[in-house]
Amino acid sequence: MTLQDHPESALFLTFEGIDFCGKSTQIARFYQRLLTLVPDALMLRDPGSNTLSEKIRRILLDPKQTGLHAWTELLLYEAARAQMVQEQILPALQQKQLVICDRFYDSTTAYQGYGRRLDLQKVETANRLGSCGLKPDLTFYIDLEPEIALLRKGKSHRVLDRLEQEGLEFQHRVRNGYLQIAGQEADRFLLIDGNRSIEEIQATIWQLFEPIWWSRRS
Amino acid sequence: MTLQDHPESALFLTFEGIDFCGKSTQIARFYQRLLTLVPDALMLRDPGSNTLSEKIRRILLDPKQTGLHAWTELLLYEAARAQMVQEQILPALQQKQLVICDRFYDSTTAYQGYGRRLDLQKVETANRLGSCGLKPDLTFYIDLEPEIALLRKGKSHRVLDRLEQEGLEFQHRVRNGYLQIAGQEADRFLLIDGNRSIEEIQATIWQLFEPIWWSRRS
Repeated sequence: MTLQDHPESALFLTFEGIDFCGKSTQIARFYQRLLTLVPDALMLRDPGSNTLSEKIRRILLDPKQTGLHAWTELLLYEAARAQMVQEQILPALQQKQLVICDRFYDSTTAYQGYGRRLDLQKVETANRLGSCGLKPDLTFYIDLEPEIALLRKGKSHRVLDRLEQEGLEFQHRVRNGYLQIAGQEADRFLLIDGNRSIEEIQATIWQLFEPIWWSRRS
Repeated sequence: MTLQDHPESALFLTFEGIDFCGKSTQIARFYQRLLTLVPDALMLRDPGSNTLSEKIRRILLDPKQTGLHAWTELLLYEAARAQMVQEQILPALQQKQLVICDRFYDSTTAYQGYGRRLDLQKVETANRLGSCGLKPDLTFYIDLEPEIALLRKGKSHRVLDRLEQEGLEFQHRVRNGYLQIAGQEADRFLLIDGNRSIEEIQATIWQLFEPIWWSRRS
């Protein structure tokens, strides 16, 4: 599904970025402002957002879960995604709702494809199965150097999940993956400089979003 | 991996059939006899056989798990399979072990492809990802009419799992799927008449297996 074949005002937006790039803060702020304009907007996170996908999320992010093979990991992400697409996103888009999602298949391309160095063509095939062919209309990618993200991580006091515990070199490969996608999918993948202040980033995202939203209403 | 490119005596055998076709009984008997010939033979079940895949199996077969979308189901099977292939089957084959498995990707083709009517080409693509390209050398398919399996089911006193609870029409589609595979993959997919007695079926499986085993030793 693309900008063209959505019913009227339906819109599917995703947020992407490496760990500790500031994504969660930005989604929360964007969603808060969004609700004043679109009160029935739906916020989801991938993996997760429904009972089954949250069960899968717990397996995926459990720091105690060792020995998980890279292809198993990828297929579990796709399974959780398929459930969310079928159970929540597609019905919402059919109801002309606006859906925003914290991560989607670009994360799989970046983390499992580039990060874990899985065959990119197979990852793309798996992504098509897991997303049931659904494509984000717009993706806000918050770009940040892994070294700076690492500094922020140092200030974080929560327990790191299984993927956040991967090293700096891994995060560099993931970021490189995102930059590759940005080059290949420039029409929907909007690169935002994560070095700026929270307020500046927030303003930029809104400036990018608002005209698209209004153009869909007219 | 096929008969040709296994190391010497390594062999990967699978058992297939609709629910209550007598498959579990036959595998148990075959394995018992097999151990007298090949003491280090490994018996696995798909989904399952390791901590992670058994976790996924519990989600898949839980009769209380409602609302599981067909594509989620399929991708969970593939995830459990990928873990078993990487963690158990491939290392065992590399050690020249004989591996037998209760179900493998033919079940996904029959149940999710034909049974749930998912796109067969996409199912095949998913199967290649989940099996990591591994193909059984031989598959013993126990063929039985769903009506007869249903009679046996009536005599069973255990709680039926989520897929066993599907109706007769579903089992007919699954059986038809198996028969299609039997036609397409005649070189490895051995059809065995499930109407005969337990002892007769057991003898047939052994008669089919033994010459292949000895030919691999010479």
